[in-house]
Amino acid sequence: MKILVANPNRSQELLNQLMESARSRVTNPATQLIPFLNPLGSTHLDCYFADYQATWSFTREVIATVEEQDIDAVVVAGFGNFGVYALKEALNIPVLSIAECSQTLACMLGHKYSVLTVLQQNVPYQEDLVALFRLTDKCASVRGVDINIGDWSTDEGVFHNLKCAITNIVDNDGADVIVLGGARFATYAKRLEKELGITIIDPVLVTVKQAEMMVETGLIHSKKRKFHHPPQPLETYCFMGERHNRFCDKKEKS
Amino acid sequence: MKILVANPNRSQELLNQLMESARSRVTNPATQLIPFLNPLGSTHLDCYFADYQATWSFTREVIATVEEQDIDAVVVAGFGNFGVYALKEALNIPVLSIAECSQTLACMLGHKYSVLTVLQQNVPYQEDLVALFRLTDKCASVRGVDINIGDWSTDEGVFHNLKCAITNIVDNDGADVIVLGGARFATYAKRLEKELGITIIDPVLVTVKQAEMMVETGLIHSKKRKFHHPPQPLETYCFMGERHNRFCDKKEKS
Amino acid sequence: MKILVANPNRSQELLNQLMESARSRVTNPATQLIPFLNPLGSTHLDCYFADYQATWSFTREVIATVEEQDIDAVVVAGFGNFGVYALKEALNIPVLSIAECSQTLACMLGHKYSVLTVLQQNVPYQEDLVALFRLTDKCASVRGVDINIGDWSTDEGVFHNLKCAITNIVDNDGADVIVLGGARFATYAKRLEKELGITIIDPVLVTVKQAEMMVETGLIHSKKRKFHHPPQPLETYCFMGERHNRFCDKKEKS
Amino acid sequence: MKILVANPNRSQELLNQLMESARSRVTNPATQLIPFLNPLGSTHLDCYFADYQATWSFTREVIATVEEQDIDAVVVAGFGNFGVYALKEALNIPVLSIAECSQTLACMLGHKYSVLTVLQQNVPYQEDLVALFRLTDKCASVRGVDINIGDWSTDEGVFHNLKCAITNIVDNDGADVIVLGGARFATYAKRLEKELGITIIDPVLVTVKQAEMMVETGLIHSKKRKFHHPPQPLETYCFMGERHNRFCDKKEKS
Amino acid sequence: MKILVANPNRSQELLNQLMESARSRVTNPATQLIPFLNPLGSTHLDCYFADYQATWSFTREVIATVEEQDIDAVVVAGFGNFGVYALKEALNIPVLSIAECSQTLACMLGHKYSVLTVLQQNVPYQEDLVALFRLTDKCASVRGVDINIGDWSTDEGVFHNLKCAITNIVDNDGADVIVLGGARFATYAKRLEKELGITIIDPVLVTVKQAEMMVETGLIHSKKRKFHHPPQPLETYCFMGERHNRFCDKKEKS
Amino acid sequence: MKILVANPNRSQELLNQLMESARSRVTNPATQLIPFLNPLGSTHLDCYFADYQATWSFTREVIATVEEQDIDAVVVAGFGNFGVYALKEALNIPVLSIAECSQTLACMLGHKYSVLTVLQQNVPYQEDLVALFRLTDKCASVRGVDINIGDWSTDEGVFHNLKCAITNIVDNDGADVIVLGGARFATYAKRLEKELGITIIDPVLVTVKQAEMMVETGLIHSKKRKFHHPPQPLETYCFMGERHNRFCDKKEKS
Repeated sequence: MKILVANPNRSQELLNQLMESARSRVTNPATQLIPFLNPLGSTHLDCYFADYQATWSFTREVIATVEEQDIDAVVVAGFGNFGVYALKEALNIPVLSIAECSQTLACMLGHKYSVLTVLQQNVPYQEDLVALFRLTDKCASVRGVDINIGDWSTDEGVFHNLKCAITNIVDNDGADVIVLGGARFATYAKRLEKELGITIIDPVLVTVKQAEMMVETGLIHSKKRKFHHPPQPLETYCFMGERHNRFCDKKEKS
Repeated sequence: MKILVANPNRSQELLNQLMESARSRVTNPATQLIPFLNPLGSTHLDCYFADYQATWSFTREVIATVEEQDIDAVVVAGFGNFGVYALKEALNIPVLSIAECSQTLACMLGHKYSVLTVLQQNVPYQEDLVALFRLTDKCASVRGVDINIGDWSTDEGVFHNLKCAITNIVDNDGADVIVLGGARFATYAKRLEKELGITIIDPVLVTVKQAEMMVETGLIHSKKRKFHHPPQPLETYCFMGERHNRFCDKKEKS
Repeated sequence: MKILVANPNRSQELLNQLMESARSRVTNPATQLIPFLNPLGSTHLDCYFADYQATWSFTREVIATVEEQDIDAVVVAGFGNFGVYALKEALNIPVLSIAECSQTLACMLGHKYSVLTVLQQNVPYQEDLVALFRLTDKCASVRGVDINIGDWSTDEGVFHNLKCAITNIVDNDGADVIVLGGARFATYAKRLEKELGITIIDPVLVTVKQAEMMVETGLIHSKKRKFHHPPQPLETYCFMGERHNRFCDKKEKS
Repeated sequence: MKILVANPNRSQELLNQLMESARSRVTNPATQLIPFLNPLGSTHLDCYFADYQATWSFTREVIATVEEQDIDAVVVAGFGNFGVYALKEALNIPVLSIAECSQTLACMLGHKYSVLTVLQQNVPYQEDLVALFRLTDKCASVRGVDINIGDWSTDEGVFHNLKCAITNIVDNDGADVIVLGGARFATYAKRLEKELGITIIDPVLVTVKQAEMMVETGLIHSKKRKFHHPPQPLETYCFMGERHNRFCDKKEKS
Repeated sequence: MKILVANPNRSQELLNQLMESARSRVTNPATQLIPFLNPLGSTHLDCYFADYQATWSFTREVIATVEEQDIDAVVVAGFGNFGVYALKEALNIPVLSIAECSQTLACMLGHKYSVLTVLQQNVPYQEDLVALFRLTDKCASVRGVDINIGDWSTDEGVFHNLKCAITNIVDNDGADVIVLGGARFATYAKRLEKELGITIIDPVLVTVKQAEMMVETGLIHSKKRKFHHPPQPLETYCFMGERHNRFCDKKEKS
Repeated sequence: MKILVANPNRSQELLNQLMESARSRVTNPATQLIPFLNPLGSTHLDCYFADYQATWSFTREVIATVEEQDIDAVVVAGFGNFGVYALKEALNIPVLSIAECSQTLACMLGHKYSVLTVLQQNVPYQEDLVALFRLTDKCASVRGVDINIGDWSTDEGVFHNLKCAITNIVDNDGADVIVLGGARFATYAKRLEKELGITIIDPVLVTVKQAEMMVETGLIHSKKRKFHHPPQPLETYCFMGERHNRFCDKKEKS
């Protein structure tokens, strides 16, 4: 089984981190995790503008890769929107967003969950996602860490800052599950869980496992109604003027 | 890994059906599915009264079994409440309800999901569960089949009736995912999915796989706040007058 | 008119307190309040596990008592679930939960109400009840007193602690009505109301009066749909193996 | 105990009907029901415009009457708004609206309730009231009877029409409790309840009994925050130019 | 185009302030703003009682003025209810409430808006309006300034107090748009916006412009269903006993 | 004042239609409407995939055009998302989406509004937008016309089909305002309004007028929090590998 771990970002370093999370718990020898980098993506995905600028090429390339490499499931490994519904429309294999999957699982694991995101400016964007997923009733809060306070240069400093932020959320917002909405936070998940005694979710890890489970069970998003294939052939939507990209070239040749 | 497939019901026949669903997709040779029958349960679990009469002994026996047999995860294999939160309080291993897990997964698989339950009288009970899980915003409807209409004595008849019921839900309630809220419907899931072109969820199957995934990832419900261990030792809550049961006897001896 | 004041608990002391609240405002000489103790109940009812362990015998004994003593209405005198919907299914007389009735009345008495519960660990359980009753839009908050702070050994100490807790709720959560979700708090209700100038609800008192009013008007929960009588005879749900209880014995004889 | 049954309308005939409902179940010999007619009210209260035109004089006269006659509780006996919150602000005795009280009680009596109102044009007004009371989550629907269909001239005709309307609501909207939002429907309540087997609420009847219960228990709406006495003396708000009314005359003399 | 700026209040000074806001941005030379004072209104409109005492004469006089002066749109220039829905029923020209219009526009201008009102006692009244407008999901909070803290006698003092209040709302409630729910605050809007860098809405200004836009586009509230003309002729609802007012006199003559 | 009427689509014919709507009510001689075509857009914008494929170039080109032509406000003239929040982040002038603006205005114009969209497959996408705008409580329904039924080749046929669809919505969903979610429907708006007697909104027309009003009043979306400028310079997000587009070229030169 081949699972594409698709980073909407162009950062190889971030992808390496994602793959580490992704691989940490895969035990099935038949499961192959394929790393994917968005060739025309930005290195920053921190606002609505970034989301739209990254996603057009991301979705095209993911679709092309799925066909070329016979992929069984796609994990959209950015904690945001990044066209996950567009991919669900276009593809006939499971497509899972780490933001959607981690928050959906969080619903089963406690009374209320909170999302800890990297930037305070990013909170409304994340709250919009919660509304899109219709999970508002289970979400205690979305909070951003304050990168202007505390030491973020050392591991110990980051751990301390995250611990304070989470303690604050648990005490004030009533959450008992925390979703780490920043890839760079994932390495602290287990240690935070241990010291704080609450469930901390590393989105990439659980989503990769969920993808594996979906392939094994044959479960897939419904292709009727919301995620019906687009009404037109995909290349119709991908006009590039004189500058067609790989995706369209390939489609037109076939 | 040992997963207890715990039937809150006393019916061996139903348990056999559940085990069939449960086993159909388990591929990990290390996974053992342990069937469990509620020794003091009823054979009918179709109302609030039944839920409470079945659950006291069910929870006690499940807890005793988990300790005796070194279980890694519990699947509450009745499509209802059946004290799943009580078990989450009492146990330190993953506890999954087929009602909660199937509906939570359904959130990721389409725009809106509907629950198809066996009895129309049972609809308010199921709607209360949806409210308890805080999934109202993703639930298009809960509908019961009308057992007074159509032929329910043959496979073909049942299939036809389910197909009509689901078509009706999809057309009128706007659902694109159906959760089969009756164990006896599970055998029709794949065929319904194929003919209707929408996602049909067999709750036992997906929950067993989800339990497997949770054990593999070390994911567990948060033991702080909602599912904190009960304030008193468990046997304190299990007074039986002169007639102590196995659970209390055992606890008191140890 | 006979109203059963049914304590899901086994504590005689607590029942005495409940009866004091219950009797304090009954003026109709025709109203008889019948105290009821759950013979197999726990002395602690402070979590989901406790709820299920207490309720099976509680509901059976209540039903048996209603028949034996020709009861006109049942007040479920524990601030929790305790199978109130199971009793509404099984019985054809008014069944009122002090948790449901006090919160429903609170809706009419102010802008938003808050529940003050005994244990902070109990808050999610109580919030689930609010969701079950569909009263989320009127509920400002559920708060637990912090029994680790202040003096709880003297009347003056308890009063002071409750006053602080309520002032805090009024100032921060925007509530103008407080429902005292702990039987032991009831004796302070009038004094708190006087000093704080807001409405404080003693759940047992108002529910007993509400039960009286329902009997006088012939009002009863709807027996169609949600609270329809269970589909099977009650004893079908009460299987006890070799150890049948009074409820089943009696049913089987008749 | 004196309960003012205050009709915001000027119709004596309607008041007679209301008093019949009100008196039908009062058993306490100490309870006096005082009928009240709005001297400057309209005979039609069927829209927002009517509500505001009736309420200014209605509230003034009610307040004057409460003082003159030493009233213990006020029942606002019109199924609408009619300034019930204004009266709660101005008075220090229980004030109950038949619309608010009947719908609040309905929450305890079934899974979902529906309001059956007289005019289809009046549905949005009633839905706004449901939103004001924050009872949307318990309200299955607001429906108006269609007075253009069927025979409304005979008792048998009206009964038949109401029965059809209610059957339709129960089957299609999922309600198991019906609140009769029209005074003229009250006389059919018991017969409808009997034939249809569901709970039908006559708002005047239950609200008068609820008022009685509130006086007996000393329960009153919270006078802090929402229903705090108006910041200015009441007469400040009641300027009439040259043409002061009884209310202001009296206030200014005192 | 003639827009009636209708003050439900009797204060000429307040009306002058409103007109200043209203005129500040009107550029179309064809637009005439007609000031209107409620002849029988109170000078204080700060509670539910005030709302009802002011509105009966307000609505009558507005309707009479609209006919006499051939008005094209009405702006209800009080930040409250004041019968705006009654006027929408009665009139066939655009009727806009500054409370409704400013909050509706606020929805487009940020993530969440907050209302800053004059009196803390007024918060529940304003929260009821938000519920009536069905804007709860976009409203971060309603807050009242605390007139007991700080200097309210000088311009600088008021500005400072408002700035603190708004900073507090932005930091704690998550709002990025502020609606100034007090006419006397409007003069500070631009300066607050500049210093705080967030959008501050002066309700009178935007509503007058919105009225202008509606007249220019021919947009009007739907006259079917909710705002259908009252079922009876308007004068039917305006009975005054012996003391008919101008509105009824006129109607009866015609 | 220059308002950019920005079509996310590449169809000149559609843009002509939009401009006709846009111009129909502009009376201010100082207002210039600038038509804009998305050079790399698709001709079909009917699903999530289309949205993302059209928006990256659309937002870049709009931003470049705003700077080059000194635009005062942008109207996103597609009835969908099309990155309106990305544009609000990036720009310091009013940005209005016809989907958001028309639905927000609809809130003021009736009890509930419905959206009539072109494709039934598009309904979930539109319902997601309603959730994003947090207008669910005012939205009666989203409905798609059924293009397989009726005659869509003639004006009379289309008018008849729309009239039937709207009548159906009004009768069954309780809407009294209709938002025409398809540019091609706009020409029928006035005629439908007249025949059906309810308010029908042509989104382009009202949004252009709203944009005009916002420029005149100096109203703009809040630039704090949600629509704060992206954390990085815009060109950082617009990496194109070897194939930089006009937007990036220009940015890099400056």
